Amino acid sequence: MSTAIEVRTPSANYTVHIGPGLLADLAQRIAALHTTPKAKLFVVTSPVIWSHWSERFLASFGGTQPVVLQVLAGEQYKRFSTLESLAEQLAEHGADRDSILIAFGGGVLGDMTGFLAAIYMRGIRYVQVPTTALAQIDSSVGGKTGANLAAGKNLIGSFHHPLAVFADIDTLSTLPENELRAGLQESVKAGIIRDRELFDYMEAHTAAILAGNHEALTRVIADSVQMKVNVVAEDEFETGVRMLLNLGHTLGHAIEAATRYEQLLHGEAIAWGMIAATSIAQKRGMVTSAQVERITNLVRAYGPLKPFTADVHELVSLTAKDKKNRSDSRRFILPVGIGDATVVRDVTEAELTVATEELFAQMPTREDLAEANA
Amino acid sequence: MSTAIEVRTPSANYTVHIGPGLLADLAQRIAALHTTPKAKLFVVTSPVIWSHWSERFLASFGGTQPVVLQVLAGEQYKRFSTLESLAEQLAEHGADRDSILIAFGGGVLGDMTGFLAAIYMRGIRYVQVPTTALAQIDSSVGGKTGANLAAGKNLIGSFHHPLAVFADIDTLSTLPENELRAGLQESVKAGIIRDRELFDYMEAHTAAILAGNHEALTRVIADSVQMKVNVVAEDEFETGVRMLLNLGHTLGHAIEAATRYEQLLHGEAIAWGMIAATSIAQKRGMVTSAQVERITNLVRAYGPLKPFTADVHELVSLTAKDKKNRSDSRRFILPVGIGDATVVRDVTEAELTVATEELFAQMPTREDLAEANA
Ligand SMILES: NC(=O)c1ccc[n+]([C@@H]2O[C@H](COP(=O)([O-])OP(=O)(O)OC[C@H]3O[C@@H](n4cnc5c(N)ncnc54)[C@H](O)[C@@H]3O)[C@@H](O)[C@H]2O)c1
Ligand SMILES: NC(=O)c1ccc[n+]([C@@H]2O[C@H](COP(=O)([O-])OP(=O)(O)OC[C@H]3O[C@@H](n4cnc5c(N)ncnc54)[C@H](O)[C@@H]3O)[C@@H](O)[C@H]2O)c1
Ligand SMILES: [Zn+2]
Ligand SMILES: [Zn+2]
Repeated sequence: MSTAIEVRTPSANYTVHIGPGLLADLAQRIAALHTTPKAKLFVVTSPVIWSHWSERFLASFGGTQPVVLQVLAGEQYKRFSTLESLAEQLAEHGADRDSILIAFGGGVLGDMTGFLAAIYMRGIRYVQVPTTALAQIDSSVGGKTGANLAAGKNLIGSFHHPLAVFADIDTLSTLPENELRAGLQESVKAGIIRDRELFDYMEAHTAAILAGNHEALTRVIADSVQMKVNVVAEDEFETGVRMLLNLGHTLGHAIEAATRYEQLLHGEAIAWGMIAATSIAQKRGMVTSAQVERITNLVRAYGPLKPFTADVHELVSLTAKDKKNRSDSRRFILPVGIGDATVVRDVTEAELTVATEELFAQMPTREDLAEANA
Repeated sequence: MSTAIEVRTPSANYTVHIGPGLLADLAQRIAALHTTPKAKLFVVTSPVIWSHWSERFLASFGGTQPVVLQVLAGEQYKRFSTLESLAEQLAEHGADRDSILIAFGGGVLGDMTGFLAAIYMRGIRYVQVPTTALAQIDSSVGGKTGANLAAGKNLIGSFHHPLAVFADIDTLSTLPENELRAGLQESVKAGIIRDRELFDYMEAHTAAILAGNHEALTRVIADSVQMKVNVVAEDEFETGVRMLLNLGHTLGHAIEAATRYEQLLHGEAIAWGMIAATSIAQKRGMVTSAQVERITNLVRAYGPLKPFTADVHELVSLTAKDKKNRSDSRRFILPVGIGDATVVRDVTEAELTVATEELFAQMPTREDLAEANA
């Protein structure tokens, strides 16, 4: 009962499999992808994921177990030093041009393993086995790989597509709830920018999705991936329509930077960003107040919208530094009703300041939250 | 009086310019390559090169000087840590997707700068301005970029073509003579494997070439580059004929590894490798004794063949580890007469052992050298 989505880009064709039970025959699925029987397999994973899932992961491999390389997960380890240590371990274990890496973990591990595959011996093959909602919905698809600099996130990387993606939704059962909810904000985004039916479905089935119902979760993840695949196929190297995927991200990245990635998860930050973008769109007459209410309610349903502390002016000035901006122009993605969006280049500092102030006005205070929990 | 060679590959088209005086209008030449007038330029160079050539390099830039980033040259600095420091400096100086890097130095700097361009923001543009014979003849052309691991040379990298290559032969005037001679061994190689006329020319004009005569040096470098360009165009990703470029390199790499890169320059090591390959080819009846003599004499003319200390058995076993070997097979490039070569897969350990022992038999001892100098 898994879903298969075909990705066709000018530089690669591959399949994204989504559903429960995929780990059960992972070895056979990977073997079917290539014709190099002696290819050595290397799993890159982290202690947390491995402690939950190593048994299920390894069960299908039988006599020829893969080499397991573990690194600490977490944004702060998504760095050159981790890549170098992984590359040295690959070399020590005799990885060659035929070897295949398997990224088994969240987006941090997936991005790093894909990048490692892109640069080890100038490019070897890899497979994505994402274990977070964010990685299954978003980061494992599209071919973007990379790591962080001290100067900023994802400032180094490559485009390098996997041989296949196996998103086993069973693995989400051990994911902390806030991580699940934050990842699903990317599906909310998918609904807003390109897929009205997904939006409707997420409205109607919130409880089932959040409870991990197999059918509901598979459908939401698959529809989100399909949306991203369509956009990436149109625009592999991010020069046009692919920018729409950044709805909520310009301000979201600013919030993450202003709070040093310590207060909010990525999805929690872009939830705020989507609300601000929707407000700007409303004032420009691009969405009705009824649409604003539906969008805001859906974002909240997969929330909670988590409070954070930051300075409005700092946030506004940080949006000007977003690396999506070539040279001087400042871009912003705005929804057009529900299921469509557009890129505008003339969002003013004043508009952005108002929209950001509104966020703080509707933000629950710590006292509100304490009361709600009491 | 410079020569322009067009490179056409499935993924990029660019021109390699070779000749004296190219630095004089470098800024204008780079400006003509792109249509992003606000593109920021960054030069990556080293203190040694910059001390000789900064004035000539900067003269053409006038009011908009490039940002200059300096790193120590040398194989031991061709590492992730240098790349990271360069990437952080790019980010601090506001490098964006429109920025252009200029690699100004030898092969170490060229490989690292090309790799940095390949991965900074998932790929920005760069220009090669090579300043060693090896970089002008070989490393700046072909799109291979990379860095070393502790586990081995060039184990990480990317294929990333420059916007153009400007090989100003004037810069070779400050290059130590042993570096010039070692680089020219790659031209000897080009002659042996694919260009009989280049071989003849290098035989007839040794003195002029080594003295840095403009016409002779431009011709030799240009013919060598043209040979490499033809081969790379046929085989961009190194799956077929491009392997011929490795004549002398299987044993050459083993010599470099066995001597920990401390005793010989790369070109000095492959000089020995070419002599060994020629001897194996002779015993197999692929070259006549007259051809062996011509090849050996030409290698010596651009020598001297520099003595080194290593164990024959270690050298032979190291050739089995060459990363050009996929999985189990062991490959070797052998000359076929002069101007042609072929890939064989069945060179035995015994053949290789004999050829390696012959090298030591003809190696001048330290006493011979002391006598020659006396
Ligand atoms: N390549 C792309 O196109 C793209 C797109 C979006 C985001 N990203 C990147 O993705 C990264 C974020 O990914 P993420 O949100 O998955 O973060 P993550 O990889 O850090 O995982 C989040 C946390 O969940 C834990 N975890 C993972 N799977 C688990 C499981 N099944 N059970 C229990 N715990 C589990 C991890 O140990 C970690 O602590 C960022 O670095 C971001 O830049 C990349
Ligand atoms: N990318 C490729 O296809 C390819 C091919 C062959 C070799 N390479 C790489 O090239 C590197 C070797 O290149 P190299 O031989 O140029 O070494 P290099 O870059 O280390 O330069 C050699 C020495 O010459 C000095 N130097 C450079 N230019 C000078 C000048 N004009 N005047 C005075 N001194 C100068 C440098 O400071 C250095 O000490 C190796 O790392 C090798 O892996 C790459
Ligand atoms: Zn996102
Ligand atoms: Zn070489």
